[in-house]
Amino acid sequence: MSISATDFDFMALAFRLAERGLYTTMPNPRVGCVLVKNGDVIAEGWHERAGEGHAEANALRAAGDNARGATAYVSLEPCSHTGRTGPCAQALVDAGVARVVYAMEDPNPLVSGNGIALLRAAGIEVDGPVLEDDARALNPGFIKRMERKRPLVRCKMAMSLDGRTAMESGESKWITGPKARADVQRLRARSCAIVSGVDSLLQDNASLTVRADELGLPDTQAQAAAAKQPLRVILDSRLRTPRNALMFKQSTPILLVHNGQVEESQLAGWPEFVEFLALPAKDGRIDLQALISELARRQCNEVLVEAGATLAGSFLRRGLLDEIIVYMAPKLLGNKARGLFELPLDTMSSSLALKIKDICAVGRDWRITAVPDTEY
Amino acid sequence: MSISATDFDFMALAFRLAERGLYTTMPNPRVGCVLVKNGDVIAEGWHERAGEGHAEANALRAAGDNARGATAYVSLEPCSHTGRTGPCAQALVDAGVARVVYAMEDPNPLVSGNGIALLRAAGIEVDGPVLEDDARALNPGFIKRMERKRPLVRCKMAMSLDGRTAMESGESKWITGPKARADVQRLRARSCAIVSGVDSLLQDNASLTVRADELGLPDTQAQAAAAKQPLRVILDSRLRTPRNALMFKQSTPILLVHNGQVEESQLAGWPEFVEFLALPAKDGRIDLQALISELARRQCNEVLVEAGATLAGSFLRRGLLDEIIVYMAPKLLGNKARGLFELPLDTMSSSLALKIKDICAVGRDWRITAVPDTEY
Repeated sequence: MSISATDFDFMALAFRLAERGLYTTMPNPRVGCVLVKNGDVIAEGWHERAGEGHAEANALRAAGDNARGATAYVSLEPCSHTGRTGPCAQALVDAGVARVVYAMEDPNPLVSGNGIALLRAAGIEVDGPVLEDDARALNPGFIKRMERKRPLVRCKMAMSLDGRTAMESGESKWITGPKARADVQRLRARSCAIVSGVDSLLQDNASLTVRADELGLPDTQAQAAAAKQPLRVILDSRLRTPRNALMFKQSTPILLVHNGQVEESQLAGWPEFVEFLALPAKDGRIDLQALISELARRQCNEVLVEAGATLAGSFLRRGLLDEIIVYMAPKLLGNKARGLFELPLDTMSSSLALKIKDICAVGRDWRITAVPDTEY
Repeated sequence: MSISATDFDFMALAFRLAERGLYTTMPNPRVGCVLVKNGDVIAEGWHERAGEGHAEANALRAAGDNARGATAYVSLEPCSHTGRTGPCAQALVDAGVARVVYAMEDPNPLVSGNGIALLRAAGIEVDGPVLEDDARALNPGFIKRMERKRPLVRCKMAMSLDGRTAMESGESKWITGPKARADVQRLRARSCAIVSGVDSLLQDNASLTVRADELGLPDTQAQAAAAKQPLRVILDSRLRTPRNALMFKQSTPILLVHNGQVEESQLAGWPEFVEFLALPAKDGRIDLQALISELARRQCNEVLVEAGATLAGSFLRRGLLDEIIVYMAPKLLGNKARGLFELPLDTMSSSLALKIKDICAVGRDWRITAVPDTEY
């Protein structure tokens, strides 16, 4: 049996289910599963959070004995290993599923294909990959970490139409409107870590938290998203972070990254949810490659950089940004105001080429999604 | 008889005909006319250039005796005065047209409604206005000049995603790609005048001409557009324009605007297509209000400002811009590069509010159309 149009429709439904886990599955991937029999959906499943049921297990439980002879649509190859839960491929075999359609293979090169092989060895018909690009878009960070041992790094900026992020004085509240700020909240919520610099912290005194009532999501989903706060990472080579910074009001993890040259006394007396990390630094700037490796080691899938022009420019120059999201407000701040990225460029030929993937309206502002253009 | 869905369709056709005159009718408006009988289009007409046949006259000539009993769809109220051509309203009466549907009244308050009255007095059924917003969009400059005795002033800029128009050195070729540059050529071609400053001229040595082969238009239309070059206006209070500037290679009109304090010798020995105009100036800056009034007096409908951050900022601060068109290239130039508008703003609350009317892809670049937001 080959792939049919109906297969695409059921797989699209599996993707919609997977999306429900957008803010909660980390470090696991977002996965959805649909069980279909005689053209009817008999059960749906999605993965909500690590340690709890996988999408396939949830769908099989919902179907019960009815799963026998069904077709399973899964947005990711069923796992073949026993982790905190049993292997899903085996569960599909045990339930008597007749056919499995998968959207993409497991991106972990060590286990990729094992689940499919297990299913086929049990006599189950397996078709795929189908709609692989869409499946990959569900988990860009997880996939990058599996394939390249690095998180996806996304930099978010808010600017005026003339490319300014703050007045000369540093004043920046609020360039964008409430809809754009809610969109940023959702970016934070899908991230495993938020990276900022001590200069931004000193300027804006931001909490860098996910706030349930600002997400613009249905209440249950908003509560679940806010219950899983991203790690807040402050690059602060000499540990200038003020102990009364607003971010300490919320007791979810904070990582203060210094250059290892700080006094013992500077590390004492902080709240217990504050962790310190020494990383190599040069000219007072933390080694960003080392930071990214550390975040990968901590199983961060998606990392959000919310920083000023200097730190954001450093990430960019070092080729560490996978995606730039700019919220553009319909206003002009003029040439005295602060710009987007510090870049030491002198000629047009040295300009950094991007590809704009999407521009869409978010309230009265516009969201521009760009990626580095390597084929320029 | 009232307005029906078919009326909208035929009027839309009249708009498409009017658009054929986009680059040539100035100082007249772009107008289209369709004659319909028994549900069939029997003749089409559009105005191509001043001094030649109006849309109605052209359609009536094409229809001949067949016009008797027809319905005429006109994108603008038929004229009632005898100018270089006879009054169209009378021509419609003479041809025995039974019904006239018009999209908008004549925007000149002195004659508005006269054409309609003439038609009605002759017993012709007259319906309108219909699709008035679309009709107004055909002739924003002509309408503004009729209603408010000022041209529509449009400022065009090309910038990087981070709001930069040139490198620190002034280097700016080319920020945008060929499709965006063709779009700028079409903006020039629909304009009656292009305004620039001597500093931009000294920097870029631009010709400010419409070039047939760069318009991206069908050949006949491109030739007609290029045959009607906009007036090139250089703001040059102390007459620093170099006599060997590239723009003098094309012998279509140039207006050099100085402050009236220049030497007699500075005005001598220029090509005959160069005209001088003295306007009040302050701190070396020409009075832009006076300039706009002068351009209105010269029957300019649409004026295109192609200037650097200082002059563009002056237009903006004085509230003289009706529209800002920014071509945004998918690249980053960094914070050392030159910005979009010089504006003396210190606080977020003093930022200039815009409304973004449209963002669309033009090749690999994006065109943003913004207008000042007075309701902010």
